[in-house]
Amino acid sequence: MSKAFMDKDFLLHSETAKTLYHQHAAKMPIIDYHCHIDPMEIYEDKVFSSLSEVWLGGDHYKWRAMRSNGVPESKITGKDSTPYEKFEQWARTLPRLVGNPLYHWTHLELQRYFDVQEPLSPDNMKEVWDKANSLLPTLSARQIIKQSKVKAICTTDDPADDLKWHKLLRDDKNMDCKVYPAFRPDKVLNIEKPGYLDYIRKLSMSSDVEITSFESLTHALEKRLNYFESLGCRAADHGLDYIMYNTGHEARDVMAKALKGEAVSQEEADAYKTQLMVFLSQEYRKRGIVMQLHYGAVRNNNPAAFKALGPDTGFDAIWGKADSGRNLGLLMGSMEQSGGLPRTIIYSLNPTDNAQIAAMIGCFQSDEVPGKIQHGSAWWFNDTKRGMQEQIANLADFSVLANFIGMLTDSRSFLSYTRHEYFRRILCQLLADWVDGGEYPRDMAFLGKMVEDICYNNTVNYFNMEGLE
Amino acid sequence: MSKAFMDKDFLLHSETAKTLYHQHAAKMPIIDYHCHIDPMEIYEDKVFSSLSEVWLGGDHYKWRAMRSNGVPESKITGKDSTPYEKFEQWARTLPRLVGNPLYHWTHLELQRYFDVQEPLSPDNMKEVWDKANSLLPTLSARQIIKQSKVKAICTTDDPADDLKWHKLLRDDKNMDCKVYPAFRPDKVLNIEKPGYLDYIRKLSMSSDVEITSFESLTHALEKRLNYFESLGCRAADHGLDYIMYNTGHEARDVMAKALKGEAVSQEEADAYKTQLMVFLSQEYRKRGIVMQLHYGAVRNNNPAAFKALGPDTGFDAIWGKADSGRNLGLLMGSMEQSGGLPRTIIYSLNPTDNAQIAAMIGCFQSDEVPGKIQHGSAWWFNDTKRGMQEQIANLADFSVLANFIGMLTDSRSFLSYTRHEYFRRILCQLLADWVDGGEYPRDMAFLGKMVEDICYNNTVNYFNMEGLE
Amino acid sequence: MSKAFMDKDFLLHSETAKTLYHQHAAKMPIIDYHCHIDPMEIYEDKVFSSLSEVWLGGDHYKWRAMRSNGVPESKITGKDSTPYEKFEQWARTLPRLVGNPLYHWTHLELQRYFDVQEPLSPDNMKEVWDKANSLLPTLSARQIIKQSKVKAICTTDDPADDLKWHKLLRDDKNMDCKVYPAFRPDKVLNIEKPGYLDYIRKLSMSSDVEITSFESLTHALEKRLNYFESLGCRAADHGLDYIMYNTGHEARDVMAKALKGEAVSQEEADAYKTQLMVFLSQEYRKRGIVMQLHYGAVRNNNPAAFKALGPDTGFDAIWGKADSGRNLGLLMGSMEQSGGLPRTIIYSLNPTDNAQIAAMIGCFQSDEVPGKIQHGSAWWFNDTKRGMQEQIANLADFSVLANFIGMLTDSRSFLSYTRHEYFRRILCQLLADWVDGGEYPRDMAFLGKMVEDICYNNTVNYFNMEGLE
Repeated sequence: MSKAFMDKDFLLHSETAKTLYHQHAAKMPIIDYHCHIDPMEIYEDKVFSSLSEVWLGGDHYKWRAMRSNGVPESKITGKDSTPYEKFEQWARTLPRLVGNPLYHWTHLELQRYFDVQEPLSPDNMKEVWDKANSLLPTLSARQIIKQSKVKAICTTDDPADDLKWHKLLRDDKNMDCKVYPAFRPDKVLNIEKPGYLDYIRKLSMSSDVEITSFESLTHALEKRLNYFESLGCRAADHGLDYIMYNTGHEARDVMAKALKGEAVSQEEADAYKTQLMVFLSQEYRKRGIVMQLHYGAVRNNNPAAFKALGPDTGFDAIWGKADSGRNLGLLMGSMEQSGGLPRTIIYSLNPTDNAQIAAMIGCFQSDEVPGKIQHGSAWWFNDTKRGMQEQIANLADFSVLANFIGMLTDSRSFLSYTRHEYFRRILCQLLADWVDGGEYPRDMAFLGKMVEDICYNNTVNYFNMEGLE
Repeated sequence: MSKAFMDKDFLLHSETAKTLYHQHAAKMPIIDYHCHIDPMEIYEDKVFSSLSEVWLGGDHYKWRAMRSNGVPESKITGKDSTPYEKFEQWARTLPRLVGNPLYHWTHLELQRYFDVQEPLSPDNMKEVWDKANSLLPTLSARQIIKQSKVKAICTTDDPADDLKWHKLLRDDKNMDCKVYPAFRPDKVLNIEKPGYLDYIRKLSMSSDVEITSFESLTHALEKRLNYFESLGCRAADHGLDYIMYNTGHEARDVMAKALKGEAVSQEEADAYKTQLMVFLSQEYRKRGIVMQLHYGAVRNNNPAAFKALGPDTGFDAIWGKADSGRNLGLLMGSMEQSGGLPRTIIYSLNPTDNAQIAAMIGCFQSDEVPGKIQHGSAWWFNDTKRGMQEQIANLADFSVLANFIGMLTDSRSFLSYTRHEYFRRILCQLLADWVDGGEYPRDMAFLGKMVEDICYNNTVNYFNMEGLE
Repeated sequence: MSKAFMDKDFLLHSETAKTLYHQHAAKMPIIDYHCHIDPMEIYEDKVFSSLSEVWLGGDHYKWRAMRSNGVPESKITGKDSTPYEKFEQWARTLPRLVGNPLYHWTHLELQRYFDVQEPLSPDNMKEVWDKANSLLPTLSARQIIKQSKVKAICTTDDPADDLKWHKLLRDDKNMDCKVYPAFRPDKVLNIEKPGYLDYIRKLSMSSDVEITSFESLTHALEKRLNYFESLGCRAADHGLDYIMYNTGHEARDVMAKALKGEAVSQEEADAYKTQLMVFLSQEYRKRGIVMQLHYGAVRNNNPAAFKALGPDTGFDAIWGKADSGRNLGLLMGSMEQSGGLPRTIIYSLNPTDNAQIAAMIGCFQSDEVPGKIQHGSAWWFNDTKRGMQEQIANLADFSVLANFIGMLTDSRSFLSYTRHEYFRRILCQLLADWVDGGEYPRDMAFLGKMVEDICYNNTVNYFNMEGLE
């Protein structure tokens, strides 16, 4: 086998795979149900000043790769380096990223948005820079969204946020793509971490509820959820260190302690979080909001870097807390007994949790919707060819792949919609392997429909987004 | 490559693989040394009333898949749905199970037992239903066993069981296949769980030993083991949440506490279990009984479903207790020091334990029999193509694959003997990959013998079953 | 595909792979930066008496395999068996090791050092024995090193060692290969284990520092490090059960307790180790010594075997302590804050830690050297084709593969340099897969350079060894 570099049949190794991709996957629109894009940039239809801004302005994946290549921090996030100097470092690092998804993402972005078909390297970096920058003025945020056939976007929003940009977007007649807030109350959960009391004050103001107890906290959260819901919110999201399950303390007691400024132990914090998560699950369920649980990250490992650059700058890694497997069952069981689970998507940053998650989701399914409890698409560090293959194959092994709601970008960049393409190609090749290997019948109509469902239809159905079909 | 769907060369991708399978693996009989078949059904030569009874009557793998496909419980386990309605739901779910072992198992069963060569789908479900049901009257339990070339079966039996059906089977002159009880004393171990005292009373009656202490408990167990042995028992089996190792309490004290109706802590329970397992290991060893340890399941995660349907109905998942790796060494070391290990097979439900287990078995081998301590075949959720490939390749990496005792069904259904075929095809393809890739010499006689050994001869030798060769 | 058995294109399946291997990898010299070879044997230019001595004299990998094949201990390590009897048992075991790296290592050694091209089996074992033994007189330690193009070797040495042989080797004008000591202070760390006080006395004498406190201990270690450095030491190495991080006790208090002969708890020991590791990291950093952390082994699991044969005889396995992921971040963070990390290589014996490690190294990179923090090559039980593929691909997924410092033997045998060849072939095939599959451009010059770097140049640069280029 000798394929051309990243041509139209990238990652597609048989006629079956090509048919599934080109005739089915490629034509489907995108719903990006979890990302970190700033809604202001959508509303204001941001235009980017250079390839450096769009690529290196906030992408800690690329920063991390450059650091691993020995690039000094001044040329990565430093104020004194020019945009071109930073781009140059990226172009020098890139060819060394053989086997890394950044290599593929970068070239998919160059091909789809900048008509650059050659691999980027120090040899052509100036030409690429010039060509891309010349096209950037026409590649505004909204243009990228439109060109990428994105029908809906869920951003990630703090419960105390006024959602100003979401209101403006809702009322903007020129906007084809739906942009919804997603409810991410991590700061409400993190009672043991610095900043909790400040945040509670902020939430009091935002909700117009004086929060003096666990009970008033839940009241404030209900109000904020109502507000989020009024702006179309279909998804909540939680970033948990690990799946906790502790019933040894009362949330109200733990919170009273914290409100008095006393330190709470990890066990107390876990008990508070357990009860709060159960409460929130019921609120989500009432409103038909999908609950996402992301766990297994251990953040800000490098103290000096954290001091200099703050969070989300490329210094996170993977936890390995093993009881998450069992606690996941206990937590979901508790939610189930409190009135029922909302639609739930579970993601762990530790790829060795895949089997645990795929087994556990099977314990809580129902006839509300096929695949009510989902194992989320390979997340963050695992969002690689191998990571996605593993997540998809594992899901097929343990569950019903045809009900999978598929990909999301989880990105801070507008160019990341090509990650959906990357996922779709991998999915089609995997299905083709089974068909070509005689493990599944060559029923291309059925398989084509399955591909379309996983790429788009299942997501529409699962999130039940207004006006989409 | 484009292979026909599940034809005679299913999963076999080279001439080497086909030769190994068709000339060696396929001709070997089966020893199913671990299953959950009801010996009464064998003795009475059960005839099944419909494809629904045989497929959906007790198979929680299929129930789980149907739930994951959004089928309402009433159409899965409900009393008010007809057998055909349930079958219909299965036929609708099946094509969506691309990549899932249930897809292959179902079609292997249709091909081998019902002469159905087409894939089952909503399009042909009525024809399949009629054809299969018309053949069922001739497919009695004993007929399936005979046709599948099963030479021996180990069922799973409670120590307090009177083994009535095993006695009848032993004395049945028309029975070619050996049917042996296996000793599964989980309820004796689970001192911290509800029902322990009731069970101890039952065991007292069954053993005719008044159990008032740990010492009298061991006496009762010895008597029951003698009785099991008299009916040909060759295997014991343990379902452990995790591998415990605790020497901080005395079993006799913990048991005295429990007998007084007091609660015992998890640590106390672990200490009791540790000592009881060491005791049992010596009893097994004396009798030449193989000890199986199954661990890593977290059961009955869905409280509502447990209340409605009870245990073993498809609501189990995977634990992730990481210290099992170390505890496994401590526990086996303790058994070794107490007189020696019995032949031991270790299975974890967590596939990420594979490397730990395959490394640990190498610490306790002996010249009693090659491969005295075995890493058991991929279990339950891992009993997939990928799971079996991984278990076999991992065993080859870490140990001596040629000494592997191979497959078992672990099933409640008589049709599951095709799982042995599934395993054998995967094994032959894996060996062929090494030969065809130049990693092992093309010595087909030696390889053929190795395949036959793993499929059958090693098992005969390992379990030392009377009358088999 | 049907390749000849282990010919010149062993493990190379495409022209791309063959070109990368034969034109680039094969020509590079070897730096074996971590092994367990005895420097005396190098200095004295040891000549081996038989194939049994060289293969079976100390290789617990082979012993373990033979035990797993049911060979009695007397024929493995027994005093009463002849060298040929032991070899015979190995030759009988070998063909059963299909899929095992020992199968490949053995044949690579036979091909490269003994001109035996046929697979070893009971059929030809006498001929192989005779042929190999006839060549042994010319295959002295130094001859093997020279013929294998080994430019530098780091042995593994106790801080109290007088390094007599390293001094002699340094002054030996006939020695082309550099032989450096590596600093392995496990016995200083293991305060909770038997023998600590005896060892401290030994270290006192060796360092000429009366060790009466944590402070004097650090002084003694500094002196020993200076001495190691004077003999060219470029690497330190730590064998840790797991990555501990405990700040709940003061090292000086824990050590005072131990020096009084009192038992220290695991928590106290962990705190002592944490502080000592932070101290040592700074000493390494000052001296430009590379710090290696090996963790995840659980040793001496079989008590009877340990009593009979002692440590390092094939009775070790894999721990599964999951918090190592998080603790690794805390420990490295603490080192970073104490003045900066030395160049660091991290290895876990548990392959399920791969993702955790590859993610964590990305949090502590710097512009001192590309890939300052390394995920070490697949270690011990994982040093298999699949284990290496997984480690390399995982590193590529998460980091910059081009900066990898590649392979080491970790061996006690001079014949193990073929493990570098094994690694190189696997690396080249993996890169070729990406190129042939259209996932990376066919830039053979760049790829060839990358292969040469990973095989040799990166290591020279990373360890900064005197006189190498």
